[in-house]
Amino acid sequence: MTSTLDATVTGTHVPPSPARALVCRGCGAEYPLIAQHACYECFGPLEVGYDSAALARVTRAQIEAGPKSIWRYAALLPAGQDPATRVTLDPGLTPLVAAPALAAELGVRGQLWVKDDSANPTHSFKDRVVSAALTAARGLGFSRFACASTGNLANSVAAHAARAGVPSIVFIPGDLEPGKIITTAVYGGDLVAIDGSYDDVNRLCSELVETDEFEDTAFVNVNVRPYYAEGSKTLGYEVAEQLGWRIPEQVVIPMASGELLTKIDKAFSELVEIGLVEAPANGWRVFGAQSAGCNPIADALHRGVEEITPVKPTGIAKSLNIGDPAAGLYALEAVRRTGGWMDYASDDEIRDGIRQLARTTGIFAETAGGVTVAVLRKLVESGKLDPDAETVVYNTGEGLKTLDAVAAQVGPTYRIKPSLRGAKEAGLLR
Amino acid sequence: MTSTLDATVTGTHVPPSPARALVCRGCGAEYPLIAQHACYECFGPLEVGYDSAALARVTRAQIEAGPKSIWRYAALLPAGQDPATRVTLDPGLTPLVAAPALAAELGVRGQLWVKDDSANPTHSFKDRVVSAALTAARGLGFSRFACASTGNLANSVAAHAARAGVPSIVFIPGDLEPGKIITTAVYGGDLVAIDGSYDDVNRLCSELVETDEFEDTAFVNVNVRPYYAEGSKTLGYEVAEQLGWRIPEQVVIPMASGELLTKIDKAFSELVEIGLVEAPANGWRVFGAQSAGCNPIADALHRGVEEITPVKPTGIAKSLNIGDPAAGLYALEAVRRTGGWMDYASDDEIRDGIRQLARTTGIFAETAGGVTVAVLRKLVESGKLDPDAETVVYNTGEGLKTLDAVAAQVGPTYRIKPSLRGAKEAGLLR
Repeated sequence: MTSTLDATVTGTHVPPSPARALVCRGCGAEYPLIAQHACYECFGPLEVGYDSAALARVTRAQIEAGPKSIWRYAALLPAGQDPATRVTLDPGLTPLVAAPALAAELGVRGQLWVKDDSANPTHSFKDRVVSAALTAARGLGFSRFACASTGNLANSVAAHAARAGVPSIVFIPGDLEPGKIITTAVYGGDLVAIDGSYDDVNRLCSELVETDEFEDTAFVNVNVRPYYAEGSKTLGYEVAEQLGWRIPEQVVIPMASGELLTKIDKAFSELVEIGLVEAPANGWRVFGAQSAGCNPIADALHRGVEEITPVKPTGIAKSLNIGDPAAGLYALEAVRRTGGWMDYASDDEIRDGIRQLARTTGIFAETAGGVTVAVLRKLVESGKLDPDAETVVYNTGEGLKTLDAVAAQVGPTYRIKPSLRGAKEAGLLR
Repeated sequence: MTSTLDATVTGTHVPPSPARALVCRGCGAEYPLIAQHACYECFGPLEVGYDSAALARVTRAQIEAGPKSIWRYAALLPAGQDPATRVTLDPGLTPLVAAPALAAELGVRGQLWVKDDSANPTHSFKDRVVSAALTAARGLGFSRFACASTGNLANSVAAHAARAGVPSIVFIPGDLEPGKIITTAVYGGDLVAIDGSYDDVNRLCSELVETDEFEDTAFVNVNVRPYYAEGSKTLGYEVAEQLGWRIPEQVVIPMASGELLTKIDKAFSELVEIGLVEAPANGWRVFGAQSAGCNPIADALHRGVEEITPVKPTGIAKSLNIGDPAAGLYALEAVRRTGGWMDYASDDEIRDGIRQLARTTGIFAETAGGVTVAVLRKLVESGKLDPDAETVVYNTGEGLKTLDAVAAQVGPTYRIKPSLRGAKEAGLLR
């Protein structure tokens, strides 16, 4: 697996990838665009570095004329410039929904928006990163697709592989929500349930990727992780474009590995650097949300320390249950640099968050969305978030995947016999 | 409730509604655009009649410049021309997905497409009809939204009401899938579970709508049904537009009341009449799909009779379980007129259809989608459907809502300990 991403450019008149190299986030060492995720020098994580002149040539008009998916931003992504090379369900351009009733309940006076990524093809933001990763992976010559997942990623990898007609093997903790297990298994790829936590699953995948038997296999969040992570930038680009090419003053983002938060921040920075938007007068502030059952990043911020102490996750927000978050330090850095904050929510607060979002916006979020809304409320109450500034909260997944979270709280308000008399007796005719 | 739909036109420079009158499908009697669904003369169902000159003024360019939702076709719908009057989650413009692997498995040599309406905001085609109905209902002065539902409609009405901040009350059979109950209840409106079938629920709603206590209430599929049904036309318009303004030679459509099928056919006819597309050389053929547990329309076709004998529905395809289908005769007429056919699938065939669609396209459909794929297969095998012609099959809902249907069939393919040794013992390293 040593071919570079140039191999993905197969068509004619296709703009080249703006990606230049893999760059270590720790020491700055550079590597070619191959399947590698850690620095040989310092073991730091690698990320995609771009040719800034290539990025600077991108225009609003070019983007606006593109497809109604993440691929409108192909000129800002590492692979997929040629549509024929894409491995994709065409995710993205999900709704940015005004939430005035939610704002009123929370005492937010500025404009409040929900970026609803449950509208993606497999109903989570993971479709973005999987499309980015698998498109790069195919260009690099991989012939099987894999991942370690807390559920949403498994759904997305299995569905992408089915659409592309490529074998897949996905690894999940054995105790996942039934919704996420069935929704992965139905696509017919291999599904490996592991007797352990997500962190155990992730560790095993890091070992498997080194074996001969898995040499043909792209693990989206292991060996092709740098390409994968770039897909999250589209959640920043889209919000800016949907606001009429403006960056909101505040964003509230759920954190598992912490990578989503860093990439949305990176997307805003890129847009300003290449001149597509102006930064808000006082910059933007990035806020992170975790659950109380898995809060290692927020805890480090609250304690004012520079390292993250891994935890053993508990609680209902399983899609966020990464106890040893790979990008935690970078998320801390982004929040501190922008003047944001982090907080975390209990399981009861998460359930209330899900119901409050549904009742006020018509959006039914999975537990991760409940975390974000519950933390938004806490940030307003604690004064950390400015209630007069414009705020975007990210809902990254679909309530149908975590029905158990609210199954005991909601249900029919009446049960009646099928007659007018039944309706009368229940008090419906008053 | 006697105000007409003109009341919905509140803005300036807003084109008027092209709707002209309610017209009886039975005797042709005409009524003003009020909340009425049956003819006073012959008790036949009413549908919206249009000013044909107004329709003829609509252009492709006008539509293509519109919003990325059903509202791009506002000039062909009864209400919602003024965006400020819409009660909507902005559904529509869902993906039309090429399905070459499914075609190959089925022996279809013509182009095969899946219109995937699970991509709508509450993940079924019902968002289209609810947006159409509630927008009309608000214009008619109603202040509470209601429906009788087999599940998807309940989800959609409750979510629309939450977004709009309007009270809702929805009526469902008590034995619905848990996914559909929770996904309705979470929005916080009233939810009435009825000890009976959908047909019982529907009958009760027809009685409630006549009571003083429900005078302020729009039942989307009862008193404002003519407006509601028109929303389904957008599933015909979109397919034609997405094919580059062409009508496919064959369409396969699931049937509950039968209305969706008749409205897709109506949409194609309108597009030809107003000159936006040319009909295929040999016209288009409309195929209907039911489950074996509820097949009154297909059964009438197979028996060659002119009336539909109601049945007591059974089987897993609950969203299609309407035993006394309101538009069944009109669906029969459309299928006979266009030279199509109808068939029905057993529960096992439905499960196979769900899995086959997921495996070959990456689309996870609810049971109704499994019905359609299973019937597609039967139509090919029986020679009723031309395997060399272009075909579009409609998936109207999301697999996450009917997980129980496949829960016993799919699951992890391996369960292992979190170690390389565990992976080896399971045979993953071969």
